[in-house]
Amino acid sequence: MSEVGIGILGAGTVGGPVIKRLINDHDALEAKTGLSLTIHKIGVRDAAKQRDVEIPEGLLTTDLNEVVSHPDVQLVVEVMGGTDPAGEMVLGALRAGKPVVTANKELVASKGPELIAAAEQAGVPLLFEAAVGGGIPIIRPLSETLAGEPINRVLGIVNGTTNFILSRMADAGQSYEEALAEAQQMGFAEPDPSADVSGADAASKACILASLAFGTWIPVSSVYREGIERITQVDIDFAEDLGYVVKLLAVGQRTEAGISVRVHPAMVRIDHPLAAIRGATNAIFIEGPSVGELLFAGPGAGGEPTATAVLGDVIDAAREILAGAQVSPRVRLAPGDVLDFGEVATKWYIRLDVADEPGVLAQIASAFGTAEVSIKSVWQEGQGDEATLLVVTHSAAEAKQRKAVESLEGFDVVRRVQSIIRVESDEV
Amino acid sequence: MSEVGIGILGAGTVGGPVIKRLINDHDALEAKTGLSLTIHKIGVRDAAKQRDVEIPEGLLTTDLNEVVSHPDVQLVVEVMGGTDPAGEMVLGALRAGKPVVTANKELVASKGPELIAAAEQAGVPLLFEAAVGGGIPIIRPLSETLAGEPINRVLGIVNGTTNFILSRMADAGQSYEEALAEAQQMGFAEPDPSADVSGADAASKACILASLAFGTWIPVSSVYREGIERITQVDIDFAEDLGYVVKLLAVGQRTEAGISVRVHPAMVRIDHPLAAIRGATNAIFIEGPSVGELLFAGPGAGGEPTATAVLGDVIDAAREILAGAQVSPRVRLAPGDVLDFGEVATKWYIRLDVADEPGVLAQIASAFGTAEVSIKSVWQEGQGDEATLLVVTHSAAEAKQRKAVESLEGFDVVRRVQSIIRVESDEV
Repeated sequence: MSEVGIGILGAGTVGGPVIKRLINDHDALEAKTGLSLTIHKIGVRDAAKQRDVEIPEGLLTTDLNEVVSHPDVQLVVEVMGGTDPAGEMVLGALRAGKPVVTANKELVASKGPELIAAAEQAGVPLLFEAAVGGGIPIIRPLSETLAGEPINRVLGIVNGTTNFILSRMADAGQSYEEALAEAQQMGFAEPDPSADVSGADAASKACILASLAFGTWIPVSSVYREGIERITQVDIDFAEDLGYVVKLLAVGQRTEAGISVRVHPAMVRIDHPLAAIRGATNAIFIEGPSVGELLFAGPGAGGEPTATAVLGDVIDAAREILAGAQVSPRVRLAPGDVLDFGEVATKWYIRLDVADEPGVLAQIASAFGTAEVSIKSVWQEGQGDEATLLVVTHSAAEAKQRKAVESLEGFDVVRRVQSIIRVESDEV
Repeated sequence: MSEVGIGILGAGTVGGPVIKRLINDHDALEAKTGLSLTIHKIGVRDAAKQRDVEIPEGLLTTDLNEVVSHPDVQLVVEVMGGTDPAGEMVLGALRAGKPVVTANKELVASKGPELIAAAEQAGVPLLFEAAVGGGIPIIRPLSETLAGEPINRVLGIVNGTTNFILSRMADAGQSYEEALAEAQQMGFAEPDPSADVSGADAASKACILASLAFGTWIPVSSVYREGIERITQVDIDFAEDLGYVVKLLAVGQRTEAGISVRVHPAMVRIDHPLAAIRGATNAIFIEGPSVGELLFAGPGAGGEPTATAVLGDVIDAAREILAGAQVSPRVRLAPGDVLDFGEVATKWYIRLDVADEPGVLAQIASAFGTAEVSIKSVWQEGQGDEATLLVVTHSAAEAKQRKAVESLEGFDVVRRVQSIIRVESDEV
């Protein structure tokens, strides 16, 4: 008997393609994997809603509990999104001894330890390859293939919407508002884009990636987060002059002092592979002392690629069900120290509107010197009332940079500190 | 009890770092994975040989069978290379019900079906993540994460030695012989470089990648193979003029007509991501109808990165041992049709020494026309006795290209057909 009964929660962007392929490709999947994967129930919030996928009669229900508790459902696929009621359903399934496959980054990031503990207790797998990087295999490589590697750093572009917006600002000279409007028109951004542009989506993914990479759960509340809303065309142009591209990066780093996980715009050198990642593509670097630098790239979102990741997990969980055994938890989390964000050092790009008069540079340089921030280069753009100073520093802790900026803001010759953007990729 | 006993065959380039890390990182690995991985025997050909790794007394033996049959050895790691006696040892271990982890691409490519059948029969895993791409996770993503995707194409740079040589020829203007000598001096090429430069190493990897991608075993003897020995500085320069870089590619492609797997030098457009892959780095694209285009890149060889891949497999196999269950075979192979190589179509770059006289082009064009090969562009370089014609064709089957070249060779105006190189990446 190679049949495994499946229940699905959600029939939207990801759920639709998952359902379609489990039904249409049933025989091809059986030929390839030896598994007969059969859907027994599909739970949705609104049964009357128009869908792209045709759902066979009798499968649909609006009672989500019916999916989880259905006697023929041996494995639950959660692709409804959000933390509620998805979290309750996933916990219910795990407690009932049913493996769960989820694409829900928000849920895993916010309730990871609770869900993982429930899976461990029940002795069933909780798989979430689809939660990060869409169709890019990254969770399994991190938690299995690289299980023997003490990973130092995870760094990448994990949000396609913001990458599309920043790419359009750089390539087409659009303003942030214009690029966002275009992204919305093309369906790359939601009508309410805040989860993407604020970095919240990327922070959930950074939380998951860093937790797996470092083997210690990093609460999503400990992820430092800065969005792209304040990135201006001016800074993107100056970045280009200096040989950089602005990207929204997710970074997880382990140093002797502790772990830091952060999401923020950063300048990346134009010749760095991440600079070439355009539009909706995601790209993630993983670095370890033995394995060196690994790059994973591909379509980071979208129903079809994400459905491929869900199916891979479904096949894996189904194999375990048929083997009648739990192959020990994939994720094992030990306590770890999260570094205070003030201690995290990067290089900095700082743009100042300044008075164009003698002695200004000396005054500004002394503010950096007092704060123990070493200056790498200074450029003046424009003159008189238009005078702008671009300062790029050597690596300095956030706290020291803030101290320097605070002094600058007190100077009469500094009309305004316009932008502060991290410079990341020289260290890559 | 979380202890798993390990036997290792080979203590060389890959075996050394595997042994070192299993011993030195024992406690860190246990904290991360919950597994106590203990080496009980290490088999080598020459016990007196000087090694980088210090091996505790009593572990070393020259009797390889002693490793496989040792009662405390529950899992065998084969990192000795070659098909013999490695094949016999791996089969022996599998038949004794012991999972095997191997880094041996030559063995897996040449005896894959036999080894996989033995593993299936014994109900134990046979894992070979380290056989392709060194530290890059590629085998597991292909056979597990992408199990639900009908993959169309696998394409990549999988041999670091030839990539180093071609990179040096392009970047430093070296001849093939000079670049090879430098690679040997730097330890990137063996004293006998034939396995690398002939494409044999890449062909083993192409065989494994394509077999997993398409779910059907492609015998390594069906892999079309062409090395880099005949690539000249002249063609690399002309390629650059035309906007291409020459790379040794491994390609597995599934079309309606059948599957083709091939290794050969090819011109890749300068703006294609593979063109930027330099030196010993490996990069592999996987393409499917739903998942789109995925890229995996990193250090494709070397003891330390490859040891990381071996350790990942060891941890996975150890988990299955402790679970006391075999989680169904990862690789399931169905029969498939391998396309006759003459039917495989690519674009072509053809360099001809020609007589510099009126009517030559018409004659040459007619030869291509008769063979049903459509010309995309023609360039003449030099004049008189030095006249060279560069022809780039549209996509045409190998057999048709051969027919065209045969006609050309019969013409008095064609002094010599100097080079024929595939042009690959326009289709990527």
